This record gives sequence, C-alpha cells and structure tokens, in this order.
Amino acid sequence: MANLEMRVAVAKIPRYGEIESGETIETIERPGGGFSFVLVDGQGSGRRAKTISHLVATRAIALLKDGARDGAVARAVHDYLYTYRMGKVAATLNILSIDFAGNKILVTRHNPVPFFVLTPQGLRSFNAPSTPIGLQPLIRPQISELPIAAYTYVVLFTDGLLRAGERRGEDLGLPNYLAAWPAREGRDPQTLVDSIMQQALALDEGQPTDDMSIVVLGVLPCGDAPGLRRMTVSAPIIATGYYEPPDDPANGEAQDM
Amino acid sequence: MANLEMRVAVAKIPRYGEIESGETIETIERPGGGFSFVLVDGQGSGRRAKTISHLVATRAIALLKDGARDGAVARAVHDYLYTYRMGKVAATLNILSIDFAGNKILVTRHNPVPFFVLTPQGLRSFNAPSTPIGLQPLIRPQISELPIAAYTYVVLFTDGLLRAGERRGEDLGLPNYLAAWPAREGRDPQTLVDSIMQQALALDEGQPTDDMSIVVLGVLPCGDAPGLRRMTVSAPIIATGYYEPPDDPANGEAQDM
Repeated sequence: MANLEMRVAVAKIPRYGEIESGETIETIERPGGGFSFVLVDGQGSGRRAKTISHLVATRAIALLKDGARDGAVARAVHDYLYTYRMGKVAATLNILSIDFAGNKILVTRHNPVPFFVLTPQGLRSFNAPSTPIGLQPLIRPQISELPIAAYTYVVLFTDGLLRAGERRGEDLGLPNYLAAWPAREGRDPQTLVDSIMQQALALDEGQPTDDMSIVVLGVLPCGDAPGLRRMTVSAPIIATGYYEPPDDPANGEAQDM
Repeated sequence: MANLEMRVAVAKIPRYGEIESGETIETIERPGGGFSFVLVDGQGSGRRAKTISHLVATRAIALLKDGARDGAVARAVHDYLYTYRMGKVAATLNILSIDFAGNKILVTRHNPVPFFVLTPQGLRSFNAPSTPIGLQPLIRPQISELPIAAYTYVVLFTDGLLRAGERRGEDLGLPNYLAAWPAREGRDPQTLVDSIMQQALALDEGQPTDDMSIVVLGVLPCGDAPGLRRMTVSAPIIATGYYEPPDDPANGEAQDM
C-alpha cells in the first residue's frame, strides 16, 4: 500500500423548492488515523428532517472522534434516536471509514439503499437487507470490510438519487453506468460524482424530486507532495434566518475590529 | 447577498520526517445553517501533539454541533485543556465560521499568529495580541466579525507557515503576496492555497521545518446548480499502526461480505 492516496468527493442538493436538504454529511479525522464520512437522511423533508439528521450526525461524529468503533457508533446513535424520539422517527445512516490503523475500508449501513464497490475486477453491489435507525429496538447495522487497494471506488448515496427521473418514468441506471466506468484509469472521484449528479439533475429537469447526496471514495496512486492533505468545501450562502443570540461584547469580550 | 457561494480550501502537511502532522482541522455544518472550520495546533510534534489537537478539536466540534456560540466554545475547550492537563500543555485554536443564521463570518482566535482578510478594498491583518489555550486560567479569545460580501477572502494558518525558509534566512512575505492577489477576479481559494503551499515548500526545499496548515475562505458569485453543495477530501494513506480492536463478528454481527 505504498504511495496510495484516498480521495473522497461529495455532492448534495435539496429537493426542488427547499432551501436546504434534510440530509447531513459530516466528516472527521479518526483519532487512530484515517477519516470517516457520516451520511444521514432524516425522515421527511425541510427543517424537521434537517434537525433529525443534524442530531444523529452530531452524535455519530462525537463518538467516532472519541475512538469508538464504527459498529458501536451505529448501535449507539440508533439507540439514541429510538430512545428520545420514542420509536417514532426514522433516519438512514451510512458511515464510510478509511481506517489507517486497521488498514481497511469499513462501510456501516442502516439504509435500505445499497452501495457499490467498483474495482478493475468489476462492480459489486452490497444490498443485504438493512433498515433505517429509530423505529425498532436493538437493530444491528450491516458492516462491510474492504481492503485498501488501488483503483477501488466506493459509491454511497441516499434514496433520492434512485428517485431521479421517476416523474418521467425513467431512472438513472446507476449499476450499468458504474459497471462501464473505467476504474483502472484512476479518474478523480469528483469527476464521477459530478457526472452522476448531472445525469440525475437532467432526469429531473433541474428540479430534484427529493434530496440527493452522493459520496464517492477512490483509492488511487499518490500524486501530491509527501504527506500533503487537502480539503475543499463549497456551498451556496442561504439566509436560514434561524434565531441566533449575539455574543455579548459588553460582557468583556475582546473585539479586535 | 443573493447568489453568493462560499468556497473553502484547506491544505496541510507534516514537518519533514513525520508521517502525520500534530495539527488537526475539522469542519462541521452549523445546526443553524452554515459551516465552521476548527484548526488546532497541539504543542510539540508527532503523536503527542496530534493527540492534543484531536482532543481539543473533538470537544470544539461537539459543542459547535450542539449549537453553542463560537466564543463559548473557545472558552470551554480552553477550560477543558487547562483543567485536564493542569495548565501544562498548550495548543493554538482558530475557529472560522460562515454563519448563515447571523449572516456573518466569525473568526475566533487563540493564536499569536495573525490572520488576513483580503477584499477588493485591500488587505487587512488581524493581529491583536492572542495567546494559546491551556496555560493560564480564564483567558478570552479574540473574536472578529466580518460581513459576508462578494470577493472577500479570509486566510488562516498555523505558525509553521511563517517558519518556511528560516533555515535559509528567508521568509514567505505572505502580506505582500496577499496584497498583490487580485481579489476582484474571484479566483478559487484552492488556487491561492496551492500557490502559498508551493511557495512555502519551495523555501524549505520540499522538507518543511514545521507542520503547516492553511485555510482560505472565499465568498464568490454562485456558479453551480441551485442549492448544490460539494466537498472533497484527499490524503495519503499511511500506516499509523495504532492498535484498534476488531469488531467481533461472533457477537451476532451481520456481515454482508
């Protein structure tokens, strides 16, 4: 595994008419080395769904940052949601971890929607039955372990992506599209994410039927200066207008402007 | 503020000879809308520094995700480090928030190193005296508030960047470089980060004297599909080899591979 790098690209868009998505994606650096990506889709849409997905994602990243193993994190956040929303609110949860300490990729899934792994050997769908968190007691996540190997792509998404085109009776045909993706060429995951998102938006004529999020991990030969890590985040600036109390400068706050 | 987007680019590299940096950068989506970036430089280098910066960053993002205001977060993580390390371990802390609810940019600083704000009107240095967290009781952060306005760039970094070139008696001349950056052209923050990092690496002949991290926020006219958010993360895959107990499949774990 000398001279490999991980590249992860994420894109997410709210359903048409909403200013923000009910889905939340967070990423953290694992305390033992590596990164985890947490993708949560809260039941419903709009602000209520967003609040649920924030709460679940917050709890998940706090536990992961404390070093808790992924399977325990999934169980704990399920129990949290089930306990405090009394079995009445559901959410889907995916955790994608690139674990440098264990030298493996881990995908933890509480989501009826499958995920895909693409390698030069072909496409594999991980679709064992899996339920959302929050509704039944003591459920367990599906956990899949993959080796960290060059030209491996892991493709996760929320159910909205599969609904793209349903107004016109079409769909994305994602498995076929991925099966035709030339893994061995080592293209940037960003290219794959952009291409899937563009097709989904085209099927919905730019007006998504549902919130959609896509996460693609690629393991590729290293191109950068040794040790260099990068991150980019971009988002439209929206006026959420939720009330936020001001910090109180009269309270002795040192202001340097 | 119609049709503006935020773009944030981050680069970080360990000092020469270390496999990982003692600095930690985490980002979260704010529960009221917007994003926060937490940059922590732990005292010393190598794994010990990394553990400190992980602990501080973990506490900071957990509080921010709970909706705590930035100034309270900085105070709480200082108190945490000061209490549990008994005033013996220092760390620098910067929090950069793009707050959609309050419609402002907030920079919270516990760091002797200044930060810069570049607009078409010119360059401004924020260098009011500020100390690291962890050493003295009841210290307060420097908090700066900026409007969300097009072609505003905010440039944060750790002290290692200012040490680039010191072996040869040179330095980066960052203020001059930024002052000459054409803010009005709206170039991608990634370009600015890459250019600064390349110059710093060149000054150290590819062997950085110290850990270096750079964070650049740009507020720019919106280019993407409405509501589309993106993130990318890339990092070399390293064998940290820290012990991690395996999840126990015999414990009833459903494995789908």
